[in-house]
Amino acid sequence: MPGGCKPIELSERQETILRIVKDEGPITGEHIAEKLNLTRATLRPDLAILTMSGFLEARPRVGYFYSGKTGNQLLGEHIRKLTVKDRKSVPVVCQEETSVYDAICTMFLEDVGTLFVVKEGGVLVGVVSRKDLLKSSMGNQDLQSIPVGIVMSRMPNIITCSPDDTLLSAASKLISSQVDALPVVKEREGGDDGPEVIGRITKTTVTKAFVELGEGATV
Amino acid sequence: MPGGCKPIELSERQETILRIVKDEGPITGEHIAEKLNLTRATLRPDLAILTMSGFLEARPRVGYFYSGKTGNQLLGEHIRKLTVKDRKSVPVVCQEETSVYDAICTMFLEDVGTLFVVKEGGVLVGVVSRKDLLKSSMGNQDLQSIPVGIVMSRMPNIITCSPDDTLLSAASKLISSQVDALPVVKEREGGDDGPEVIGRITKTTVTKAFVELGEGATV
Repeated sequence: MPGGCKPIELSERQETILRIVKDEGPITGEHIAEKLNLTRATLRPDLAILTMSGFLEARPRVGYFYSGKTGNQLLGEHIRKLTVKDRKSVPVVCQEETSVYDAICTMFLEDVGTLFVVKEGGVLVGVVSRKDLLKSSMGNQDLQSIPVGIVMSRMPNIITCSPDDTLLSAASKLISSQVDALPVVKEREGGDDGPEVIGRITKTTVTKAFVELGEGATV
Repeated sequence: MPGGCKPIELSERQETILRIVKDEGPITGEHIAEKLNLTRATLRPDLAILTMSGFLEARPRVGYFYSGKTGNQLLGEHIRKLTVKDRKSVPVVCQEETSVYDAICTMFLEDVGTLFVVKEGGVLVGVVSRKDLLKSSMGNQDLQSIPVGIVMSRMPNIITCSPDDTLLSAASKLISSQVDALPVVKEREGGDDGPEVIGRITKTTVTKAFVELGEGATV
């Protein structure tokens, strides 16, 4: 079974109809037909396609409106159905007291580029990236004596996302904040000291979703 | 003006028609109408939508076929229009003789996670990632004396892409090879010693494309 959503190529006549409705809408089907020197019956499939696909809106006794949505906006609606909840992966964490040396080892063992630093209850206190660790390992000989707490980015200066966010909004934060990973967090019942880390969204997550969309896999 | 490509929601009746054609195609419009107890004229817009959107194919005097494409496959066709050529960014390079120390500095200055290692003529000889540099900087005190050549991945064990590839195929290589960046290369005229690096595709490139598609920007 096909999914409910797919792209459609518009014909030249459909593009012309769109232009007419955009310029003169609301306009009835009869008036559009007149302008094109065609019968209403000939136009019916075109108007049905344009309405069902969301380019036009029809209101009884008034006529057709231009919805204002472009093809790419409509494709965007499909992408916006993907959520953080459905896509997040497991967070890899360490503590503030963890040494830079151990943090690097964890990164290699777990094959991730970012660790989330937590305290009791999984509460987020910071984020440490491969970049932070690379910087602190340059010229420092005793990585076992430096705690992650002094090289990490610290709350509240951490960009996070929530399980109910769209993957699109998380991806947008990754780009605008120039980070490789976002902690997925949820507020804790009666917890005042910060949100709990429950997942991880990275540029890899987004790249995988892009590949699956492009290859036509279920999304 | 809308682009030529957008998603469309199928009605229940259209889904039913698809199922009939899938099971019994090739089948004429008349026969489909009979099965549904509807007139041919009533079905005409539905058949037009299904054909123009690529779900069905029509052959005169034979009838309708199921194209075998799912909704998501058709959505994928939109994504597959994005090319490496249109999306690549500038490569950041160093030489085999560059020290690990200088390579790390270049990475920070240029704010990239991967350097391409080239020889004369921009010919690709290797790739060095933040991960490679982090590994070599652990416990090594004299990063200025270690050349990039001994910590990099070396040709021909480098996954590359070409300007004419789709962004989708490049994204798929990023995932399957578990790397953060691919060099974009082209063969050199009469050059036997390898391809020239002309660009860079990273998970950031793909994440940006995903955000633009999702936000309905031009792609």
